Amino acid sequence: MRHIFDAELTQLGQDLAAMSRRVEHAVTSAGTALLTADLQLAESVIADDLAIDAIERDLDERCVLLLAQQAPVATDLRVVVSSLRMSATLERMGDLARHVAEVARGRYPRVAIPQSLTGTFAEMHDAAARVGRRTTTLLTTHDLAVAEKIERDDDLLDELHRDTFNATLGPSWDGTAQETVDVTLVGRYYERFGDHAVSIARRVTYLVTGDSEVAAR
Amino acid sequence: MRHIFDAELTQLGQDLAAMSRRVEHAVTSAGTALLTADLQLAESVIADDLAIDAIERDLDERCVLLLAQQAPVATDLRVVVSSLRMSATLERMGDLARHVAEVARGRYPRVAIPQSLTGTFAEMHDAAARVGRRTTTLLTTHDLAVAEKIERDDDLLDELHRDTFNATLGPSWDGTAQETVDVTLVGRYYERFGDHAVSIARRVTYLVTGDSEVAAR
Repeated sequence: MRHIFDAELTQLGQDLAAMSRRVEHAVTSAGTALLTADLQLAESVIADDLAIDAIERDLDERCVLLLAQQAPVATDLRVVVSSLRMSATLERMGDLARHVAEVARGRYPRVAIPQSLTGTFAEMHDAAARVGRRTTTLLTTHDLAVAEKIERDDDLLDELHRDTFNATLGPSWDGTAQETVDVTLVGRYYERFGDHAVSIARRVTYLVTGDSEVAAR
Repeated sequence: MRHIFDAELTQLGQDLAAMSRRVEHAVTSAGTALLTADLQLAESVIADDLAIDAIERDLDERCVLLLAQQAPVATDLRVVVSSLRMSATLERMGDLARHVAEVARGRYPRVAIPQSLTGTFAEMHDAAARVGRRTTTLLTTHDLAVAEKIERDDDLLDELHRDTFNATLGPSWDGTAQETVDVTLVGRYYERFGDHAVSIARRVTYLVTGDSEVAAR
């Protein structure tokens, strides 16, 4: 029994990492689609989000089955409950990548982001792509140095998010209302994307260290 | 044992309903603070959100304890896992109410919402307050007619959310960039608030009917 259960826990970890790889791909493609007004790429992100949702449902069903059949305790229980939560978080991260892609699609053939903010959003895109990649690495390796890097990327995303407000609310802003709306929403999507990655980083830290204060922060 | 477990499940349900009552109070107060630029009310929503977060942590700890000590199966297991998820959702709804209050506080002594959109946001406020109230009722009674009403309120919130875009992007919009940003964000907060309530409505429906298709929608 124990042998089978260990294999199932390992599989759960691998599936979470695979789900994260799709989210990483989604956010990277969505940002590229946004910055280059690439309609086809935006469409592909939007279509692929259904697959991420399906993985979440499948993962959740297996977590509930594991709880019912194995009645895990202690660390094993923590792993299963954390997996349930992390799959929900990854699903939301996929949604946010899709939302970025939807803005790109909605403004095509124009680039949604006005030129004065291209640099800021290119930095947000880089930070979010890094967050996506590091989340996959963290779920694969449980290396807490990576969790720390995700927190720093999130700080950067928060700072860039503030920059977008300073821009739209500053005296030199001459964007249209559509541009103001798009900058506001996409900035918020990236900011939330970082928050969700941090919640995963803290859950993994909790699993590794057993320090529940970290997960509650 | 069974007797104690039943008591604990009942307590879990009551705690979720109590948490929902706080969220209902938060969203109602936040909307009032927004529409009337009531600084004190906004501050109270922001401060009270910490209590909602604390309830979530407490509820989650007890769910994990129940899983470890009782190893529930079948319906009992579904109840505990759903409680874990619904507490996370209620916590997010509390955050969104807080975000509305933060906008109200940030613009004080001005009203954040421009006069041309007061009617739309008053309707959003009413719908969100109703959603909050109905979520509490649903968690208390498990009456699926209430779940259905939450879906209708959410449809209305989506429609009002579209109205805000039609306004800010329409030819007669003469709001400042700050007003465009605020309308965009608060509209989004209300729209998400409705989505989260629908996810609770579907989880309760799933618990009552056992139809997992509903929860996955």
